[in-house]
This record gives sequence, structure tokens and C-alpha cells, in this order.
Amino acid sequence: MSTFPTRQILLNSRPDGLLKESDLVRTDAVLDEIDDGQIIIRNQYLSLDPAIRDWMSESDSYLPPIPLGHPVWCTVIGEVVKSKSSLYAVGDTVWGMGGWAEYSVAPEDYVFPADMSLGLPVNNHLSVVGAVGMTAYYGLLDVGKPVAGETVLVSTAAGAVGSLVGQIAKIKGCRVVGMAGTQEKCNWLVNDLGFDDVINYRETDDMAAAIAATCPNGVDIFFDNVGGDILDATLLNLAQKARIIFCGRISGLNSDEPIPGPYNMWQILAKSARIEGFLISNYFADFENSVPVMANWVKEGKIKFKEDVVEGLENTPEAFLKLFKGTNKGKLMVKI
Amino acid sequence: MSTFPTRQILLNSRPDGLLKESDLVRTDAVLDEIDDGQIIIRNQYLSLDPAIRDWMSESDSYLPPIPLGHPVWCTVIGEVVKSKSSLYAVGDTVWGMGGWAEYSVAPEDYVFPADMSLGLPVNNHLSVVGAVGMTAYYGLLDVGKPVAGETVLVSTAAGAVGSLVGQIAKIKGCRVVGMAGTQEKCNWLVNDLGFDDVINYRETDDMAAAIAATCPNGVDIFFDNVGGDILDATLLNLAQKARIIFCGRISGLNSDEPIPGPYNMWQILAKSARIEGFLISNYFADFENSVPVMANWVKEGKIKFKEDVVEGLENTPEAFLKLFKGTNKGKLMVKI
Repeated sequence: MSTFPTRQILLNSRPDGLLKESDLVRTDAVLDEIDDGQIIIRNQYLSLDPAIRDWMSESDSYLPPIPLGHPVWCTVIGEVVKSKSSLYAVGDTVWGMGGWAEYSVAPEDYVFPADMSLGLPVNNHLSVVGAVGMTAYYGLLDVGKPVAGETVLVSTAAGAVGSLVGQIAKIKGCRVVGMAGTQEKCNWLVNDLGFDDVINYRETDDMAAAIAATCPNGVDIFFDNVGGDILDATLLNLAQKARIIFCGRISGLNSDEPIPGPYNMWQILAKSARIEGFLISNYFADFENSVPVMANWVKEGKIKFKEDVVEGLENTPEAFLKLFKGTNKGKLMVKI
Repeated sequence: MSTFPTRQILLNSRPDGLLKESDLVRTDAVLDEIDDGQIIIRNQYLSLDPAIRDWMSESDSYLPPIPLGHPVWCTVIGEVVKSKSSLYAVGDTVWGMGGWAEYSVAPEDYVFPADMSLGLPVNNHLSVVGAVGMTAYYGLLDVGKPVAGETVLVSTAAGAVGSLVGQIAKIKGCRVVGMAGTQEKCNWLVNDLGFDDVINYRETDDMAAAIAATCPNGVDIFFDNVGGDILDATLLNLAQKARIIFCGRISGLNSDEPIPGPYNMWQILAKSARIEGFLISNYFADFENSVPVMANWVKEGKIKFKEDVVEGLENTPEAFLKLFKGTNKGKLMVKI
């Protein structure tokens, strides 16, 4: 019987604020026996996403907390090396729920096939045609329902999701304004991705005024990864029937204090607007329809994206912190 | 040329907290000349609504502030006594924007016909088939889109809007839970209106637990007139794909401090939920389709409602405060 020795990084205690090395334990383990319906994946890439920080906390988010003593959960992509599933065979490339480790055991219900026939490299299936890219796709198109000529405002527009949201909105004929934290990122959005305007939020004293200036007809769609003050400033600049796509809450993620919601919620009523949250997991089963569309845009050069690939499992915790320092340069992942 | 002497109650200063007599001036005036497109209405009933308090403030809500020295704005219903409008003739019964006065000048764009052929008394056109009733109708049916078997939670359920929301939800086959502030109101909801369950929010220490107990499958639709803590408690009990219909914010209306939004906004993402605001004014043009439906439900005995009619213009300011003390017994209006 084949066995799979694997290095693992376990969650040892629940972080207070930012993740610290002392919250983790690095161990070696051997995977061998699995239950019916399970597979073992040789992880080729680990996806690092802000939601992981949420799963480390005691309170339920949309998943229960990661159990202490368990490898930190993350999305992985890799090759099936052992299967007790009728859905997946050894040699298949799959993505789904795994952990900070070289090998992961996964139940078949938490795993999806990666369509390698599209001709994109395996790592792209954690970025532009993975959950991140499809978050942009479904969030903007299915929740936001953009109409050509509308104004789309994107927070963290230079991020993995935001940069794709802006480009898809341009494909759909919208005016697109992005927010980013450095001049370099702002330049990239306008010069390389075709955004119509940008707001450098680290150099903006009055965010509401900056949004009013760059979105003179109001904001029809706000794709929000941030919440907090930026959401509040946007609420003051909504067009009638505006849609706010609520896709994250980085601003509150490392705080143990309760974070108040937006002060200007009243505007939702005044503008007949809508705030809608969505989880990409509800769309996984539809990926077979959307991933080929996105893959074609990529091959046609209509969609550009960046990946920030860190080498080596051992560097995963340090890499993870890039998400909260804003220093990652595209979709963050670890190559095993 | 006919003239129309009228008592008026003018806004003299912007209230700090609750409206006080010193914020008002009572005067006599004479209406005579009007511009093209205007009418003079002999007000039969004045509608008293929480939104009026908003219009008294300096900041824009969905209308600009009431100008100081102007009769306090409100919805009125009455008879056209003079017309320079091609849309309305003397003798027509109309409802629309007027003021705290015996007669009001109104531009035709802010006035709508009351369909007296439906056989309901004129005052009903400020309540069950007026903007209040239609707020319940469109808010629940067009924004909330209830499906039979879903759970609908209604805040201020014994209020004018809430009591109608619950009854329409019952007509549509939903399970309906109402919140009210006295045992008497709770009894009325269950015994007379057919609500499935109630929460007395003045006798509830742990609102989230009370909602969990009365809505064991989660809240599919929350019709929210309140905001604040009750919204926060509901956010912790949403069903997947929940809809929150955002229809008011009494909890913050008399405060000059900024009021934070809900702390549990994160649940919007976790539950793929939606918060949507709406203004009934966007539906005025469609009333000809909906008012007959509601009128039929009333005549069939499927919809019950209460009106709290205060007699006499001079009692308007005191009556208005009932809305903020929770002492009105149904849709509040003043009979002139």
C-alpha cells in the first residue's frame, strides 16, 4: 500500500489579530488510509485568500472554524494520487478544499475537476479561471447585472478579484473606476487594464468627494472587497437603483472588536439600492459554463491578470501575511 | 375670484431630537393665485408618517429639507377646489404632497387621483390603499418576492405597514412572525391578523435567541422598519438567500449622532443575502394596477387594518409625536 509522507502546518491556537508563527505548529505526517468517497491530492499549488483568516477564528463564518491541530484549510490544486471516489481517478487534476501541506485528504464533495483541455496552466485554475476569477465573473455579472454605460466602482481594484471585475465590466461596456493604494497600482489599472479612472485611497483625504469627482453620474455598481469607511463614502454617491456587491470585509478581519456597519445605510433606502452578498461556492456547479468563457477572454488577450507565486510550503505563513499588508502582486499562491 | 383662507402650521426651526412646539409657528394665510400646472386642495385628511421628521432635518433624505417658514410637508387627500392643471378638475379627489394646513397648493406632478369607484372611504386612500398599504404591497411582493412556505419576519408588525405586510405574506402562504412592543399588540397580531408567532421586543432580553426560537428555519424575508439592534439580531438568523427589505430607520431618526449600521453585516456575505431599499414613490405610477387588488382583499375580509384618526389641524403636532412614542393605534392621520 502506497503511503504519502507530507509536511504540514497545523493551526495550534486562534490568532489574536494577525496570524503569528506561535499560532502554528509545523509537523510531518504520513497519509495512507482514506475512507470511501475520499481522495488524496498531491498539492501542486496552495491558494492563499483572506477568508482563511476568518476560518481561523472561533466564530462561524460561512464555514465552521478550522479545528485546532488540523492543517490550516485552503483551496489547493493538484493531482489525485489515491482515490476511493467514483468521481476521480488517480492522475486527474482537481481543485478543492485541502490544507497547508504537501498532500491533502479531501472528501469528493469538496473537490472539483480542473478542465485542463482549455489549455491554461494548472496555476491559472487557482486564479483567473479559479474561484477568484469566477468570483469576479459571477459577482459582477450575476449579482451586479451591469448594463453598458453604467458606472462600476471597484475597491481593491488592483487585487486579484478587483482587477478582473474591472476588465469584465469594460468588456460589458461600462465606465470603470478603480481604487488602489499606490500610484504604481493606479497606473497599472489605467494603462494596462483600461480602467477609465482611479482613486489612490492612500492619498485621498475626502473619499466621498473623490468618488463624486470620478463618478459624476453616481455609482451604479460598487464591487466591494473592503467595507468600512470606503463603503460609507460610496453610499453617499450611489445612483438610483445602485447595486453593492458585498464580497469581503478585509477592513474588519483582524479586529476582535465588533466593527460597526456603514453609517450611511439610510442611502440604501434613499436610492432604492441593494446590498447583496454572495459566496462563490454556490456557483461551483456552474463553473463548466463560465470557465470556458473566461478562458477564451484570457486567450484573446481581453483579460490580464497577475499571480504572485511564492515557492515552498515552508514560506506559506509569511506569504499569507502579504494579504493583510497589501504587498502581494496578484493572486497569491504557494507552489509546493 | 375665489380665495381660500387656511390655517397653517409652519416649520420655524429644525428640531433637535423630537419635534417641539417651539420649532413651529401657527399662522393664518389666504390661498388664491396659483401657477399653471398647480391645483388647490381642500385637505380632508393629513397623513402623519415618520419620514416627515426626516424632511425637517437639514440633511437631504430622499427629499430636500422642508424650507423654514413653509407648512410642514405631508401627504394629504382631499378635493380639488381650484385647478390650473389639465389633469385635475374641481371636484376630483386627489392625494399627494401637501402640508399641515386646511388647504394646500400642489403641483400636478406631485398629485395622484384617488379611485373612489373602488367603494372605499376617502381616508382608506391614506392607509390601506394609500402609500402606506402599497409600501407593504410592493415592498413584500416586488422587492421581497416571497415564496409559499418561507418565513417572513416583520418588525413593528402592529404598525400600519407591518400589519399589512404580515397579512399579505399570509395570503401568499408564508409563515409570518411579527415583532411588537406590547402584549396587547402581540395578541392582536396572532388572534385577529393570523400571524403564526410574535416577539414582544420590550420583554425580550436576547433578541437573536428570540428570533432563532420563533424562526427555526431561519428568516427568508425580513421586512425592516427599524434598523439598529433588531436588524443586527436578525442578521444572525438569516436563511440562505434571505432578503431584507429596508423600509425605514425609526431607531436612528431622532438622533443627531451618527448611527452605525449593523455590526453583523458579514452575514450578508455568509448567507448570500440581500438588503434592498425602496421608495414607494417609484411605484406611484403603477398604483392603478395594485390598488384594486388590495381593495378587493379588503372587501373580501382578507386584510384588516387600523386607522388612528385625530380630529383637528390644531392637534397635528401632538399627534405626530405618537409615531415616536409608539402610541398610535394604526395608520395615523388628522381629519381636518
